[in-house]
Amino acid sequence: MKSRKPRVVVVGAGFAGLRAVRQLARNPVEILLIDRNNYHTFIPLLYQVATGFIAPEQIAYPLRRVLRRIPNARFLMAEANYVNFDRRVVETDVVNVEYDYLIMATGARTRFLEVEGAARYSFGLNTLEDAVRLREQILRCFEEAEHQSDVDITQQLLTFTIVGGGPTGVELAGAVVDWVQGTLCRNYSISAPVRVILLQSGDRLLAGFPEGLSRYSNRQLSRRGVRVHFQTRVRSVAPTGVTLEDGTTIETATVIWTAGVEAHRPDTTAEVPTATQKKVVVRSTLQFPEHPCAYGVGDLAYVTQDGEPLVGVAPEALQQGTTVAANIKRQLQGRAPLTFDYFDKGRAAIIARNAGVAYLFNKISVRGFFAWFLWLGIHLYYLPGFSNRWLVLVSWIRDYLTKYRAILHIFGFKKITLSNNLKDKKI
Amino acid sequence: MKSRKPRVVVVGAGFAGLRAVRQLARNPVEILLIDRNNYHTFIPLLYQVATGFIAPEQIAYPLRRVLRRIPNARFLMAEANYVNFDRRVVETDVVNVEYDYLIMATGARTRFLEVEGAARYSFGLNTLEDAVRLREQILRCFEEAEHQSDVDITQQLLTFTIVGGGPTGVELAGAVVDWVQGTLCRNYSISAPVRVILLQSGDRLLAGFPEGLSRYSNRQLSRRGVRVHFQTRVRSVAPTGVTLEDGTTIETATVIWTAGVEAHRPDTTAEVPTATQKKVVVRSTLQFPEHPCAYGVGDLAYVTQDGEPLVGVAPEALQQGTTVAANIKRQLQGRAPLTFDYFDKGRAAIIARNAGVAYLFNKISVRGFFAWFLWLGIHLYYLPGFSNRWLVLVSWIRDYLTKYRAILHIFGFKKITLSNNLKDKKI
Repeated sequence: MKSRKPRVVVVGAGFAGLRAVRQLARNPVEILLIDRNNYHTFIPLLYQVATGFIAPEQIAYPLRRVLRRIPNARFLMAEANYVNFDRRVVETDVVNVEYDYLIMATGARTRFLEVEGAARYSFGLNTLEDAVRLREQILRCFEEAEHQSDVDITQQLLTFTIVGGGPTGVELAGAVVDWVQGTLCRNYSISAPVRVILLQSGDRLLAGFPEGLSRYSNRQLSRRGVRVHFQTRVRSVAPTGVTLEDGTTIETATVIWTAGVEAHRPDTTAEVPTATQKKVVVRSTLQFPEHPCAYGVGDLAYVTQDGEPLVGVAPEALQQGTTVAANIKRQLQGRAPLTFDYFDKGRAAIIARNAGVAYLFNKISVRGFFAWFLWLGIHLYYLPGFSNRWLVLVSWIRDYLTKYRAILHIFGFKKITLSNNLKDKKI
Repeated sequence: MKSRKPRVVVVGAGFAGLRAVRQLARNPVEILLIDRNNYHTFIPLLYQVATGFIAPEQIAYPLRRVLRRIPNARFLMAEANYVNFDRRVVETDVVNVEYDYLIMATGARTRFLEVEGAARYSFGLNTLEDAVRLREQILRCFEEAEHQSDVDITQQLLTFTIVGGGPTGVELAGAVVDWVQGTLCRNYSISAPVRVILLQSGDRLLAGFPEGLSRYSNRQLSRRGVRVHFQTRVRSVAPTGVTLEDGTTIETATVIWTAGVEAHRPDTTAEVPTATQKKVVVRSTLQFPEHPCAYGVGDLAYVTQDGEPLVGVAPEALQQGTTVAANIKRQLQGRAPLTFDYFDKGRAAIIARNAGVAYLFNKISVRGFFAWFLWLGIHLYYLPGFSNRWLVLVSWIRDYLTKYRAILHIFGFKKITLSNNLKDKKI
């Protein structure tokens, strides 16, 4: 029976998984890519979907279109529930799949840190659905605020609270402020000021960047109207607001949780060793310690470089995808897998219109217009799909010139309910 | 208290309602537009959203963008539940709104003709949500069919049954066939033939067109693989298929119901006289018989022209929107409203790639490439929004040249469940 080509099963079509599939194209293996969605999500632009820049289709690339050009790959839309290392089987909600080599690349999900109410009442920003829900929530708050007669409820509806001062929190805060000032305040007649609040547990924003860039980010956000609070931890989240550790309460209808992620992966036969954020500790070759034919890559894997853990950005995942594909090819040829070696070209974050920060090759700090432009260029380059790239570019140019973002739709294909009881309304 | 300008409340932002708002712009009235969605849906292109041509945003125009240029108009996103003609109040799910003049333009919804199971198990095509759900259903069927080992279930999944041989049914049948042959069969490895079945209760398609065009439509669809059945009525719809009046059963996972619509409107204080399809009988001036300050337009109104009822197409609604705005202006000046007079430029339907039919000025029959091109041109011209027009044109050209439609996403933001129990699967 075993006359067929070895089968490589890739679970997760994020940056790492998809790169591995592409690198294994036209090799003597049969590839099966499994994902719960039939598209690849370009996560770095999620915040732009959440703030009306671009439509969700533009950062969601259909996997069947990718695989059409890879004759030795197939796709299975399924949720992987369990990995049986002993029998080499991935159990999904539709079928069980045998593998010869396994690449686990199921990524991360929002980590709510066991804060009471956070998982239930706050919005995450990890999936395309999160992004669309958040956009619709913000728009609904404006729709509601316009015909609200109670001043307190209006202020609650127009207060947007972001928890977490990492890149996602900073990018989102800036994008929300730009959106509100450029588009929403032109379209809605609202009687209260819009408040965007950014809560950071540490004493600076963008902890992964040099301190000068952190200070610059704070100045830029503050100047644009974001209220940044440092050393502030959230104790609980309720439908009407957040309570901080010092007991103060912020009345807010929208809480966006960007304070960290944790590995999100199927259960496995044997317990695998895990590190912080539930990440799986893999060997330096990215293999699971006890299972040399199974690899863990991307946000689910705990990988160190020069003694420091990787932080979970797209370039790390992409390079891991390349390494894991090379290692499987080596195993097929009877050679030993190689150690993963991350080449860090740098990191960048966008703050708002004309303002970004970048830290290149671990030594050069860049900020302002150039860093902003660099960020946009890099992400446009990496965005999959020619027409997506082109549509996103047109959206950006239009937004830049008109300060008006066109996507204002509340589809509500999945209904979200505003988290307060709105009464006493008249018009 | 009554020193303010008279308030015109427009309920429904379809073709008729939105046209009326535009015609009343910069007149001495205060306009309040109410719709349950915050966008206008360009209904004639719904079938293209359902078959992966274009993204939903491209035919959904945000109402706040329209109203931004109309200083005397405001928007309320709400569901109108009840109209109190005596107190001149529209009750919505968020506020109660007083009016001086009322334009009711809430349109139509799918009419399931009391066929057992039809409302529950079949897909409509009247709203943007319907269109997206249908697209995702068709794609899910292909995803499922690919790893299905039971031949009967595979065939059931790949059978798409359309009930109704009017323009919507014909356009959808042709678009599904083109989509399946051009895109889906290139992207999915499926083992059974795809069947598209069109069930028509009468003895010809497109009953509103001359017989020659009906025969042409039937030939075109049949040649492309659609199985057209005449004199066929559906007795019941179940999760696994439809049963016809003669007792035969079609095993099909997807039933699309296009066999007619009925008026969809809020309840009112007094019973209003209704005609077929629950339409409100209005005067020739479009006023409600007993309520001269209330108008009914579009698909909810029963209007006759030369003794024949209007059929419910966009040009009728648009012209009614113009008339009702003019009549309210006349009433404000103390003049009598004028009779609505429909100028019928003709009707057109698209069948499939390179094939359409048109009947112009009630005398000229056109078919084939020219009618197809005419249809596309007219709809592109009327599509609201410059960038939408441009994006749709690009999508059409790309589809025409590559025979590949790019929108293959199953977002599942609202989860739909496949209507059968799929078992016995392996891969």
